[in-house]
Amino acid sequence: MGERFGITMGDASGIGPEIVLKAWSRGELRHLVVVYGDLAILEHSNERLGYGVALGRWEPSTTPADGVLNVRDLGILGPGHLEIGRVSAHAGRAAREYVVAATRAALAGEIAAMVTLPVNKEAVRLTDPGFTGHTELVGELCGSRDVTIMLVSDELIVTHVSTHVSLVEAIARVKQERIRAILRLTVDAVGRLRPNPRIAVAGLNPHAGEHGLFGDEDEREIAPAVAWARAQGMPVEGPFPPDTLFHLAVRKKRFDAIVCMYHDQGHIPLKLLDFEGGVNVTLGLPIVRTSVDHGTAFDIAWQGKASTVSLVRALEMAVKLAAKR
Amino acid sequence: MGERFGITMGDASGIGPEIVLKAWSRGELRHLVVVYGDLAILEHSNERLGYGVALGRWEPSTTPADGVLNVRDLGILGPGHLEIGRVSAHAGRAAREYVVAATRAALAGEIAAMVTLPVNKEAVRLTDPGFTGHTELVGELCGSRDVTIMLVSDELIVTHVSTHVSLVEAIARVKQERIRAILRLTVDAVGRLRPNPRIAVAGLNPHAGEHGLFGDEDEREIAPAVAWARAQGMPVEGPFPPDTLFHLAVRKKRFDAIVCMYHDQGHIPLKLLDFEGGVNVTLGLPIVRTSVDHGTAFDIAWQGKASTVSLVRALEMAVKLAAKR
Repeated sequence: MGERFGITMGDASGIGPEIVLKAWSRGELRHLVVVYGDLAILEHSNERLGYGVALGRWEPSTTPADGVLNVRDLGILGPGHLEIGRVSAHAGRAAREYVVAATRAALAGEIAAMVTLPVNKEAVRLTDPGFTGHTELVGELCGSRDVTIMLVSDELIVTHVSTHVSLVEAIARVKQERIRAILRLTVDAVGRLRPNPRIAVAGLNPHAGEHGLFGDEDEREIAPAVAWARAQGMPVEGPFPPDTLFHLAVRKKRFDAIVCMYHDQGHIPLKLLDFEGGVNVTLGLPIVRTSVDHGTAFDIAWQGKASTVSLVRALEMAVKLAAKR
Repeated sequence: MGERFGITMGDASGIGPEIVLKAWSRGELRHLVVVYGDLAILEHSNERLGYGVALGRWEPSTTPADGVLNVRDLGILGPGHLEIGRVSAHAGRAAREYVVAATRAALAGEIAAMVTLPVNKEAVRLTDPGFTGHTELVGELCGSRDVTIMLVSDELIVTHVSTHVSLVEAIARVKQERIRAILRLTVDAVGRLRPNPRIAVAGLNPHAGEHGLFGDEDEREIAPAVAWARAQGMPVEGPFPPDTLFHLAVRKKRFDAIVCMYHDQGHIPLKLLDFEGGVNVTLGLPIVRTSVDHGTAFDIAWQGKASTVSLVRALEMAVKLAAKR
């Protein structure tokens, strides 16, 4: 137990199947992994792209075989269902099922952590119209309320007070209670990755509101939450004017992590700094879940071109976070 | 006429006086310039920091003297008023007056363009409580409604649908009419700086709203404005998901400029890419106004340490934009 890491196969029409095969064939997955997906699809990809990977079917409660890439075969899709590079209800529904199965396995302790490969939101929504993202689905399956996204690159870590909601709704969520919860999650998670972390909190409005001239959320909601966290001994400072804060953190090395008030405040600079190698971590779950920081890349799917960098880093990050729980 | 460029001195408590003297003493200001400010303050800075600049008083309607740094002396502050590195009502009021004088001179054709050095907003507000920024003040003095900020660095240009307003108010301003106006200004300005510009328009919501799932402004307001602009032959595309767009533009060189929906959407990535050398240009004015992209830097003021890079680039940009009008 605790030594096995689950990787979901992602949308079969995209680059998920090939990157797990490619990474395995190159020896980049240096841990005992189990792929949650469809064995028939992986076999098809393996043959078509010539990776020569030995695949094995793994059943929970058995010991995974040595020397093969173990697959928890959910038996949903076969090659006949494949619509490579296209949005497909079949592939979308299956991709969602891999996530559900891996989450349940993690909750049951069958795997120590899960790493997710990309789903296509539109495809999932063809059979689950309320789907907004991996983060929210896994949070729901775990019964967790205050979940959020942490993006990790070598130069900077960001977390977010809200994730996949409209900007109007994101502003409405900038409330002391929620910010306090995210500060707690951030301090805990960053503390597992960096010694003596220095954490900055971004403002919401331009120039952090300029003393209330451009909106009052910075003074009314963010500042008191930061004061509360500091009183608890948390190493956080802010709110800072957002436009200069990322420069201070990344170029001047003043901070290891920034707590962001909305999705794009953190995602824009992080993806500009490190597009390929970033890792996405869900905070606020009873399990460890990391994810690659790229999409299904339908335009290059099933061509063997996709990079394995983000998968390898997401697995290493899952191993690191699982070890410190 | 048309050959003289105005530079406002900025807040006397900050780095404004020393950077214009330093740049002049090093021969970095390769054009006929006139400083709008206080001669007594410049003389004091010149002596104290030992720049050895020959200063001359210039009166409008006369020919500026050769070989000296010409100053349009507004006679407001003397060394006795100085509170170096501190917010001061005197210095704030004076800094505002320099901007008013230079703007009027530009409108009257006495100068071909103006470059502004930093003011301290808090200081200006001690005597002008409604002051929100240079951009808005100059816009008001010119009677211009659709003004906005363009930030220019070597790697990327950004413009903004709104500037110094709360994020709630910024969202309210994401309306077709305003976006059309900013697209027009962006196409015009970027076209003067880059041949065959390729311009992208960012979405407002995460993932540009994911087809309406996270807010409808992207589909309701932004997409029709982009369609309108394309029908007019403008080289614009979008709306794009904001979190990957800056990577596409900067790292993949797909676009020269990005039209941003709010202040920090453009300011965060631009200041991360190029903190010191960025130039701020006001679009939508009947005159040319550029600005350094840094603040008063009270912490290092009057020590001779401040960089002249942004001033030199702001002047070069003003010259370039004035030549193409």
